[in-house]
Amino acid sequence: MRKVTFGGANSLDNFIARKDHAVDWIMWGKEAADYMNRYWKTIDTILWGRKTYEVAAKGGGLTGYGNIKNYLFSRTLKKSPSPDIILVSEDAGKFVRKLKKQKGKDICVMGGGILGQSLLEAGVIDEVGFCIHPVLLGSGIPLFHPMNRQINLKLLECSPFKNGCVLVRYKVKN
Amino acid sequence: MRKVTFGGANSLDNFIARKDHAVDWIMWGKEAADYMNRYWKTIDTILWGRKTYEVAAKGGGLTGYGNIKNYLFSRTLKKSPSPDIILVSEDAGKFVRKLKKQKGKDICVMGGGILGQSLLEAGVIDEVGFCIHPVLLGSGIPLFHPMNRQINLKLLECSPFKNGCVLVRYKVKN
Repeated sequence: MRKVTFGGANSLDNFIARKDHAVDWIMWGKEAADYMNRYWKTIDTILWGRKTYEVAAKGGGLTGYGNIKNYLFSRTLKKSPSPDIILVSEDAGKFVRKLKKQKGKDICVMGGGILGQSLLEAGVIDEVGFCIHPVLLGSGIPLFHPMNRQINLKLLECSPFKNGCVLVRYKVKN
Repeated sequence: MRKVTFGGANSLDNFIARKDHAVDWIMWGKEAADYMNRYWKTIDTILWGRKTYEVAAKGGGLTGYGNIKNYLFSRTLKKSPSPDIILVSEDAGKFVRKLKKQKGKDICVMGGGILGQSLLEAGVIDEVGFCIHPVLLGSGIPLFHPMNRQINLKLLECSPFKNGCVLVRYKVKN
């Protein structure tokens, strides 16, 4: 079965962007790049929440995402905003459960905490992984949204980077 | 100058307790105990937020805190609820700035995110340290509250424990 990972860069106070969506605080470096290069090879599918997709689309769209199959989850959009992305209007959890059974590489849940929350609640996320940045932003767009249940995790990896970021990766105990 | 540390145990989604104040999810172990034993020897003063103090008082009060000087920060209380604790009604940041200049060991900010927020904003906290637990609680009492400014941090320590907790300690760049 294909592995579904929810993750990304966050501040220690669990924001994924400033209120205006700015991610100028994200630190890049060789360790993060090496990790992402390795990770990128393991996936062929990205699941986008609508808000995260709209921010990405404004920043140049999905060019540069190579041979990746992109799905956009929205209950409000009536048609896909781009030929590069497939609109999914049905229940996200049910859809991903089916997708995991199809042949293919692993699956990445991109950014937005609302899609992450609904997929965590549905029990279809296998791993969460975050690059915790050494900053308290004080306000912004939250990584986690309130959930209707507790999710237990098993620590798989904890790597401090030279720039002060901490990479943590957990298996979700579904 | 005396060092002020804000910290404690949190879930990966940054709650310090369930909504009903339960901390049954906190994992104890030798590594955490060793760390706390070492830390305890470096402090002689605890700063309490009102809500955190009220939870601690219900759970048996401040007995067991030894020769610690306890301060309770509240703008609503008129008198101290116990001879074991000194009520502080003045501005928390100003008070702690004076306290840091007095002779003594280091100072611990206990629990509550509201006092933590106000002292972080005031620039009097020198270190933050958290024992990040391998769990998403989904809801509860937040560790961080919105702040009026960004706080930059420097990673000092990152130690994964055998039980899956990750201890992170940061210097606050005031």
